[in-house]
Amino acid sequence: MPDATNRRILLRSRPVGEPGEENFALDEAPVPEPGEGQFLGRTVYLSLDPYMRGRMAAGRSYASPAEVGQPMVGATVGQVARSRHPDYHEGDFVLGYWGWQEFGLSDGTGVRKLDPRMGPLSYALGVLGMPGMTAYVALLDIGRPSAGETVVVSAASGAVGSVVGQIAKIKGCRAVGVAGSDAKCRFVVEELGLDACLNYKTQDLDRGLADACPDGVDIYYDNVGGKVLAAVMGHLNRGARIPLVGLISQYNATGPTPGPDLMPLLVNRALVQGFIVSDHPDREADFLRDVSGWLKEGKIKYREAIVEGLENSPRAFLGLFQGENFGKLIVRVGPDPTRSGD
Amino acid sequence: MPDATNRRILLRSRPVGEPGEENFALDEAPVPEPGEGQFLGRTVYLSLDPYMRGRMAAGRSYASPAEVGQPMVGATVGQVARSRHPDYHEGDFVLGYWGWQEFGLSDGTGVRKLDPRMGPLSYALGVLGMPGMTAYVALLDIGRPSAGETVVVSAASGAVGSVVGQIAKIKGCRAVGVAGSDAKCRFVVEELGLDACLNYKTQDLDRGLADACPDGVDIYYDNVGGKVLAAVMGHLNRGARIPLVGLISQYNATGPTPGPDLMPLLVNRALVQGFIVSDHPDREADFLRDVSGWLKEGKIKYREAIVEGLENSPRAFLGLFQGENFGKLIVRVGPDPTRSGD
Repeated sequence: MPDATNRRILLRSRPVGEPGEENFALDEAPVPEPGEGQFLGRTVYLSLDPYMRGRMAAGRSYASPAEVGQPMVGATVGQVARSRHPDYHEGDFVLGYWGWQEFGLSDGTGVRKLDPRMGPLSYALGVLGMPGMTAYVALLDIGRPSAGETVVVSAASGAVGSVVGQIAKIKGCRAVGVAGSDAKCRFVVEELGLDACLNYKTQDLDRGLADACPDGVDIYYDNVGGKVLAAVMGHLNRGARIPLVGLISQYNATGPTPGPDLMPLLVNRALVQGFIVSDHPDREADFLRDVSGWLKEGKIKYREAIVEGLENSPRAFLGLFQGENFGKLIVRVGPDPTRSGD
Repeated sequence: MPDATNRRILLRSRPVGEPGEENFALDEAPVPEPGEGQFLGRTVYLSLDPYMRGRMAAGRSYASPAEVGQPMVGATVGQVARSRHPDYHEGDFVLGYWGWQEFGLSDGTGVRKLDPRMGPLSYALGVLGMPGMTAYVALLDIGRPSAGETVVVSAASGAVGSVVGQIAKIKGCRAVGVAGSDAKCRFVVEELGLDACLNYKTQDLDRGLADACPDGVDIYYDNVGGKVLAAVMGHLNRGARIPLVGLISQYNATGPTPGPDLMPLLVNRALVQGFIVSDHPDREADFLRDVSGWLKEGKIKYREAIVEGLENSPRAFLGLFQGENFGKLIVRVGPDPTRSGD
């Protein structure tokens, strides 16, 4: 190994309400040795995602929490540095889940080998990974878009929302984004090709939705909950579908957060359905085929926000809850041998 | 005609918040004459249902409102008194929609002929009518009960809820009711055969649900919204389904009513879907076959609360919002020739 120490970001304490840098600790430990049936992965990219807020808490989310004193959990793209696993060999590129650290062990569970000729390695954490698949499956399977319908998506410039809006366009829908700055809204309309985008921080959402969705809303792909959801509820068409994929507006709440008035659901016979992408491994092949095809055809554009250095992960993660991110948030933890500059 | 005047209950004014008797007016008008293609119905039974609160308002519901100065709308069972319609003859028993009055005209739209040998005429307003079909279709098509699952139903002693709970039992589910008095709860358990019933006015719902639903809640058939819905949300199983059929707790609200925290929907990948029975005429034949069969076999029991006299309709209707009703609320407006006492 070129480096005998493994820098890690530990969960130091569980946050109450909004997390802060004090909930994380940078730590150095020896690089671990793979046991029989394991490999050692060297982290190239670490994914930062809103769902990780749930892992910092002891309960209330849909997966096991991170343990205090242990590295934060998360998806990683890396290279096999040493292996005692029959299927993984030194130098292989893999998508894994060894978390916020420079090196991690894996027994291969949930690991996918990556072919660098298919595109940048980091895409496996975004448009060709969990966020892209979340966009694809929840929009198509819960939203069931038909040509001519109107789709609204919140966090429209984000890792999930940006893919949702573009798939909605591919499916022949009117697509309207909601985002948190004028720059993001310009990106959503000018780069991603959505029909309109509302800035929820500065615009009257009710009036904006009335203008942007003259035929009402058939599908609302919700990543945020809160006031955006409440506003969209006033514009639902009969039979509307709401994939409920994220509630980032309330992830830092310390108690139950009241939801929107449900009367519009009843009146419009509308549907709200919670969605977690890990329930749908059967859709992965369809997703990879379709979205990689759309990427190659230029029908889907993809933007990353790459932060340099593991030590900057906590600050970048906290920015997700301030709406600071613009594109898929990725940390470059170590050199990427597939890029000429690294 | 034995009587040349037609007593009617008019919508005198639209309520703001809770309706009162002052929103209704008793009126006398000449009995109308059927035109070509119409028949005149004499009302035997009038149905009183919570949805009528929506018809008293100018908007915000899913059907056209009643007009101020006109009779309140509603389903009726009656007898054809005079006819210029080729399909309806004097003496025929029919389910119609001529509203809160002793006589009404119909062109046959939505009318169904009734065979008094099939059961009491009034059942066409309840267990074999709109409320029963609402119970049947929303439970089976949105709830999709499987044997061994747990079903919770609110307003469990009411016209819809009492049928929901009994169908849940027929389908092999554990069935738990929520109702507003100990007497109703005894009826739900002892007469209808549900496994348990919670009194939402006196019991801690969260603790009661934990006790009554040791395996969690797979289906919550919601007639009420509000605090019962909020409590059940804390007990949902993964993949739970919530047919949203009524929100009686907020029908008298003057503005938007906050809903429950939606986090449990996301965490449990649960579904909420609004339901209006009039969207599903294709299910009527299945419903009539199954529920009339279960009635004959004694698997479904049915209780009516029959109020005597059209003039008592407003007070009886207002009692629905106080939880005063116990069984399907029906007004006997005129004599029922199929009953020996009338």
